[in-house]
Amino acid sequence: EERKRGYPFFVWKDIARWFIILLIGIVTALIAFIIDICIEEFSKIKYRELKKSVDKYVLLDRLYIPYLLWVLSNICIVFIGSMLVAYVEPVAAGSGIPQVKCYLNGVKVPRVVRIKTLLVKAVGVITAVVGGLAGGKEGPMIHSGAVVAAGISQGKSTTFNKDFKIFQYFREDHEKRDFVSAGAAAGVSAAFGAPIGGVLFSLEEGTSFWNQALTWRTFFGTVVSTFTLNCALSAYHGRAGELSYPGLLNLGKMDPFPFQFYELPVFMFFGMVGGMLGALWNFINYKLAVFRIRYIGTPWLRVVEACLVAAASATCGFLMMFLLNDCRPLGEDPTKVPLQLFCADGEYNALAAIWFQTPEASVRSFLHDPMGSYKPWSILVFVVCYFLLSTWTFGLSVSSGLFIPNLLTGAAWGRLLAILIQYMLPSNTINPAKYALVGAAAQLGGVVRMTISLTVIIIETTGQISNALPIIITLVVAKWTGDFFNEGIYDIHIQLAAVPLLPWEPPPLAHNIYASEVMSHPVFTLRTVENVGHIVELLKLVSYNGFPVVDPPLADVVEITTYKRLRGVILRSQLIVLLQNKIYNENANTTWSNLNVDMNMFRSEYPRYPSIDQLEIADWEKTCTMDLRPFMNPSPYTLPHRASLPRLFRLFRALGLRHLPIVNDVNEVVGMVTRKDIARYRVWRHRGHMGMEELILSSEI
Amino acid sequence: EERKRGYPFFVWKDIARWFIILLIGIVTALIAFIIDICIEEFSKIKYRELKKSVDKYVLLDRLYIPYLLWVLSNICIVFIGSMLVAYVEPVAAGSGIPQVKCYLNGVKVPRVVRIKTLLVKAVGVITAVVGGLAGGKEGPMIHSGAVVAAGISQGKSTTFNKDFKIFQYFREDHEKRDFVSAGAAAGVSAAFGAPIGGVLFSLEEGTSFWNQALTWRTFFGTVVSTFTLNCALSAYHGRAGELSYPGLLNLGKMDPFPFQFYELPVFMFFGMVGGMLGALWNFINYKLAVFRIRYIGTPWLRVVEACLVAAASATCGFLMMFLLNDCRPLGEDPTKVPLQLFCADGEYNALAAIWFQTPEASVRSFLHDPMGSYKPWSILVFVVCYFLLSTWTFGLSVSSGLFIPNLLTGAAWGRLLAILIQYMLPSNTINPAKYALVGAAAQLGGVVRMTISLTVIIIETTGQISNALPIIITLVVAKWTGDFFNEGIYDIHIQLAAVPLLPWEPPPLAHNIYASEVMSHPVFTLRTVENVGHIVELLKLVSYNGFPVVDPPLADVVEITTYKRLRGVILRSQLIVLLQNKIYNENANTTWSNLNVDMNMFRSEYPRYPSIDQLEIADWEKTCTMDLRPFMNPSPYTLPHRASLPRLFRLFRALGLRHLPIVNDVNEVVGMVTRKDIARYRVWRHRGHMGMEELILSSEI
Repeated sequence: EERKRGYPFFVWKDIARWFIILLIGIVTALIAFIIDICIEEFSKIKYRELKKSVDKYVLLDRLYIPYLLWVLSNICIVFIGSMLVAYVEPVAAGSGIPQVKCYLNGVKVPRVVRIKTLLVKAVGVITAVVGGLAGGKEGPMIHSGAVVAAGISQGKSTTFNKDFKIFQYFREDHEKRDFVSAGAAAGVSAAFGAPIGGVLFSLEEGTSFWNQALTWRTFFGTVVSTFTLNCALSAYHGRAGELSYPGLLNLGKMDPFPFQFYELPVFMFFGMVGGMLGALWNFINYKLAVFRIRYIGTPWLRVVEACLVAAASATCGFLMMFLLNDCRPLGEDPTKVPLQLFCADGEYNALAAIWFQTPEASVRSFLHDPMGSYKPWSILVFVVCYFLLSTWTFGLSVSSGLFIPNLLTGAAWGRLLAILIQYMLPSNTINPAKYALVGAAAQLGGVVRMTISLTVIIIETTGQISNALPIIITLVVAKWTGDFFNEGIYDIHIQLAAVPLLPWEPPPLAHNIYASEVMSHPVFTLRTVENVGHIVELLKLVSYNGFPVVDPPLADVVEITTYKRLRGVILRSQLIVLLQNKIYNENANTTWSNLNVDMNMFRSEYPRYPSIDQLEIADWEKTCTMDLRPFMNPSPYTLPHRASLPRLFRLFRALGLRHLPIVNDVNEVVGMVTRKDIARYRVWRHRGHMGMEELILSSEI
Repeated sequence: EERKRGYPFFVWKDIARWFIILLIGIVTALIAFIIDICIEEFSKIKYRELKKSVDKYVLLDRLYIPYLLWVLSNICIVFIGSMLVAYVEPVAAGSGIPQVKCYLNGVKVPRVVRIKTLLVKAVGVITAVVGGLAGGKEGPMIHSGAVVAAGISQGKSTTFNKDFKIFQYFREDHEKRDFVSAGAAAGVSAAFGAPIGGVLFSLEEGTSFWNQALTWRTFFGTVVSTFTLNCALSAYHGRAGELSYPGLLNLGKMDPFPFQFYELPVFMFFGMVGGMLGALWNFINYKLAVFRIRYIGTPWLRVVEACLVAAASATCGFLMMFLLNDCRPLGEDPTKVPLQLFCADGEYNALAAIWFQTPEASVRSFLHDPMGSYKPWSILVFVVCYFLLSTWTFGLSVSSGLFIPNLLTGAAWGRLLAILIQYMLPSNTINPAKYALVGAAAQLGGVVRMTISLTVIIIETTGQISNALPIIITLVVAKWTGDFFNEGIYDIHIQLAAVPLLPWEPPPLAHNIYASEVMSHPVFTLRTVENVGHIVELLKLVSYNGFPVVDPPLADVVEITTYKRLRGVILRSQLIVLLQNKIYNENANTTWSNLNVDMNMFRSEYPRYPSIDQLEIADWEKTCTMDLRPFMNPSPYTLPHRASLPRLFRLFRALGLRHLPIVNDVNEVVGMVTRKDIARYRVWRHRGHMGMEELILSSEI
């Protein structure tokens, strides 16, 4: 299909790919930098003002004033973001990771990689975190990376109606997907400062076909992204050029902690706790999501819910600060906003310190503060509150991720368990940082069920590899424990959205399901030389994206409704472009002569082709014919009707197909199988049992 | 095909998989432990005796005696290993990584994963390293892991003629390959103590289809392997249970080194040097390999060459110690065998210290010794000698890898450059460890051209993540520089072996090559109900592994040599098992009734089916017929004859096919395409140009 331009063109295309990856890395890092700085600065202002107010009114015994102020500020900020998400771009809600995962799997979720989504996402995540919600900025950054990649690689923006006329040869699904996968990796890398973790994340969550060259480019992208971010951040912190400055690590530099053989059961126990809590978190979130789908349908209800959660977050924090009087002496302490509240002079309220900062800073506090910085009771209350708040927050109509909230919950209960262990073994010196970190890993692992990438990300964000083994063991146990009860949170949300995501393996015991049962038939076919009117009718009638092209019946045979011999497959988008450009023959006998048609004709419309209703086809045109042979794919993959579901599945999964003609023994089309027909069959595993079910999939995608 | 045993069977199979992976991890680690300890202890004895001899004869001025002793001991030890490799199992030569890579790609290299190979490999690598060759033990450990995995997962050993009757359901190519990939990863993990690096290695070098569940099991295997090895080693070092004991790290614990923005060009420069030296190393090794193939054909010549290299290694070392009098004061020094030689009392010969230990220990010396431990001149001479020795050693008929020799060369020139930089910038304090490490990474990266896995392995073996960015940058530049000149060393050796390895991407500009040109035809077909005599004749006549099964011509039509309609595909191995078990019908009309044939019939022979000549088929049997329908694959993947090479390629690559029937428009077989037909087309890239060539592939595989 593609015309030959010689090997130099390929070398050049390769260079262009590297250049695009470089741009993706830099831009993603800069966006992450802007989000970072905005959140940091706005939070600083917010909490400084609140502190002033508290300090002032606590003496007057009118604490409800700062409380109201806090609630009001939270609601106002969250309101902006929530309005944007609910009314401007609903797909920007949440962390965006499930959507990116679907996109990489080959499902076209509408509007996921548009620039508008990116803008809403960026503003949304700033408002969500500054607004005090139990959300993180990491998921949205990953989504941002994906959007940036999709935008840059196409060299045009449909939203701004601008075409830069570059990189046109990357305007196809496959190439775009590769770039998006690299972009998501660059996003992870920018969010956590974890280049290797980024590559692994995009592999573990996204890729279906491992390609060395692609991975290698992805790696380059993540390195560029981390590097750019570190440069920008180190300059911002006044340490320009010091790339090994430990302040660049998200979770702060950990010291290596020695561990002994006998501690392994402890880590496993942590993993089990994390797995169970994670499964519980997922369960609650699932129930909430179902509730939301059922009862919170309109955008304004969603905005109200978001504001409610914002108020609840502030209330939780306030009540905790007010009721649990956890006073600590002021000292060489890491908190920026020490709040005295009811404490004696020279002391500050430890819980206020946790609440009066971004969740990320709170994770750092739990990880790095010395033993005895917090009372066990206050930690316990905090864990319960934050656990519930975070599971309530994820799935709201705001842009926020779940990494940091879960790390925070986990770090808190990890520290709590460390205090307990210390209490039971008073002779040993327990390092709370160790258990807080393991707890954080266990909780997050229990929720998202990633292992390798999460391990690497945690290692990279704490800058310490010697802690790898405990973290790995914990994560493995957490995943096992969690998988016993339910699926990872992303898979739960993907399933709720009824997206035809193909799993990794064909469902077992499906050998007795044959293509003839799975396929849709009768099938709508086009003849090799087809009447324009018929094409238009067909496109208007059905919504399929691919049509088999068949031999015309021999002239002397009366047209009977029998099967016809397959010649090729043509896509809806190709037909529309052909109609749009009026590539007709005046009558059926003209051979195709004027066919110096450019590939660019197909590319220029990509990825948003007009719908058939938008085309204006005059009546006289409908009598023309169109020769589909030069445009169709002449050698599509096919399978016989007696092929079993696993064979179908493997073909779809491995080659990323969207539709497949099913033929009989003499190569006549008897049906079509689409991705959705395959994705319907889903395996469930629950408490050691498994089975198969048929899903009802969304018809929107 | 497979009979249904319900979902519990699948759950059970899953548990069995995890259990096998656990065993693989443990056994691989134990083998690595034994190799480790043997090398360490034997080397200690050897160098202690040599030192005694040197100390004695240096006073008598008869240094030729210890020299001869050294040469003799080297030759004797290497002779044993070389004899084993040359006469017992030639496939155990080298590092085994190219062979494992081919195996994972789906090419059946004969005898790669047999227990005999493992034994020869283990003994071979001990003799090679103790014998003073410039080789490492890491590659062979990876190969060992692969063999262990293949052995355990099959639950039987054909070498020992023992069948444990377990894990029979894993006796098929696909499952076995998955386990071998996990085993190779466990091998890396045991060799370097790098669990994450192991997973990445098996992905970067081996896997073609990314599967989350598999990766996740592989990860478990590497963790078990590292864990077991650490337990065993820490017990051996008298620190039982201390799993974070830094002595377990192969390259020794590195301190974090701060680095500045302006140092990046320096790292890039190191990368370029490494890339160029690596390309040179590969070039020399390639020429040597070609020379070996041409002139060193017989096993005894190969043994002689190995002994020659052993002698040359000793001579190099001796000359260097003798001629370059690099004396250093004895102090708190890491070397175990300080040799006084011609030095004054209280001093020792620094070069002797490098030569009188295993290469691995020498890498540690170059990485960790303080500035000024070595004279620049002696390092330079060492680099040149060791560079040549190591490239001469790789490819000899001994089992040894190239990781450690290249790390050693790189660490040496890295340290040399550090001394130069220190000399030019006397005001700064240069940390030689930093540059030695970067140099080691650059050199190894230039030779093997891995990036992600190598980065992670180096990070894990030095226990320091903060050095990641410099190492990554260096490796990326080294790969780019090296790729400009030639391919990675493993790819060079695979190409020399003429193995039909499929690359990652279809060759560009191959759209004008059609299946009809690639396929082999006329094609040998079998009828659905076929005469036994005909099958035997056909199997004896051709060596194909898959045969299309076609419709018999209609009874009333005269048999003409036309194409026949495809019904399915049957494998040579299936036919042989059927013949062996005499699954005949007495006459052509019997329907298949006695077909409660067990899958285990096919499994019990796996993987070594008898050849057709070993079967005894009586003459009367040849008149029987065989109904192939219940055994054949009834819905094979097919492509039309007008499909282009990239389409063929994608199908083969993504689904791991071995043969594919090519059909015409009415589903009649017109040809067969095998993996070899596809792998023939290879792209070359050289100094920015690229092109395509057709290779001649080995007919043995």
